[in-house]
Amino acid sequence: MKISIVCLGKTDNLFLINEIDKYIKRINKYCKIGVEIIPDIKEKNISFDVQKKIEGKKLLEYLKNFNYVVLLDENGTEYSSSEFSDYLQKKMNIGYKTIAFVIGGAYGFSSEIYSNFLDKISISKMTFSHQLIRLLFVEQLYRAFTILNNEPYHHS
Amino acid sequence: MKISIVCLGKTDNLFLINEIDKYIKRINKYCKIGVEIIPDIKEKNISFDVQKKIEGKKLLEYLKNFNYVVLLDENGTEYSSSEFSDYLQKKMNIGYKTIAFVIGGAYGFSSEIYSNFLDKISISKMTFSHQLIRLLFVEQLYRAFTILNNEPYHHS
Repeated sequence: MKISIVCLGKTDNLFLINEIDKYIKRINKYCKIGVEIIPDIKEKNISFDVQKKIEGKKLLEYLKNFNYVVLLDENGTEYSSSEFSDYLQKKMNIGYKTIAFVIGGAYGFSSEIYSNFLDKISISKMTFSHQLIRLLFVEQLYRAFTILNNEPYHHS
Repeated sequence: MKISIVCLGKTDNLFLINEIDKYIKRINKYCKIGVEIIPDIKEKNISFDVQKKIEGKKLLEYLKNFNYVVLLDENGTEYSSSEFSDYLQKKMNIGYKTIAFVIGGAYGFSSEIYSNFLDKISISKMTFSHQLIRLLFVEQLYRAFTILNNEPYHHS
């Protein structure tokens, strides 16, 4: 299985880029993984809703390339780290070749995205910046693989 | 009200230090705030349980200085960002002069700490490194103040 973390808009924060990269390298020991950035719309004279809709169309087109798609969304299901590792194991058992975990833009997902992809995971009831969510998610993915492999990183 | 974020053990991760500092500076516009580090035990020949107990004693002593203490703990109450801003407002309304939000060490809190302080907040059902939790929490505090002041940072 190859895992893609699909994000809307690149980050300029070097701290985040370095930290995310650190976890990506660690996860690579267990699984093929990549971070894929869909450029966000830079247009200034459009409303957030219009922006979300245009970005949603591009995203939808892109997500057609994947066997399975999961949205990271505040209203999704919350898992503990151990439950999330089970979730991941089940997806691997099904035999998906490609799976995308999608992190929306600053204003979340368009309604088209929600109606096409029903599986949603929430990292927290709290709202975090969509850029920070990237770091949180790669940390959880790494943690999940260490749990599945009985390695000492995780202690809850 | 002065907010103290009381942490067990210092972090060497420069990126975390910088990011946390960025939010602390922003929060300072709204409220007195400080990060206070209780050194962790470096002893190598003791079990995690003994380490937790010794650190718990030091922490308990230190926390006597505060009017109100909240533990950040996986088994605590989960709030949305907006609910957390209400929570914070209520604590300010009560008129506490000092409030401590406490982030445990790598192995969590000792039973003594749990029995002394009953108010627990959970940032996520997932487990994150106690060092990353510091960044998540200052981001939420900053977000809470922007919500309370109707400023444009937050959109959920």
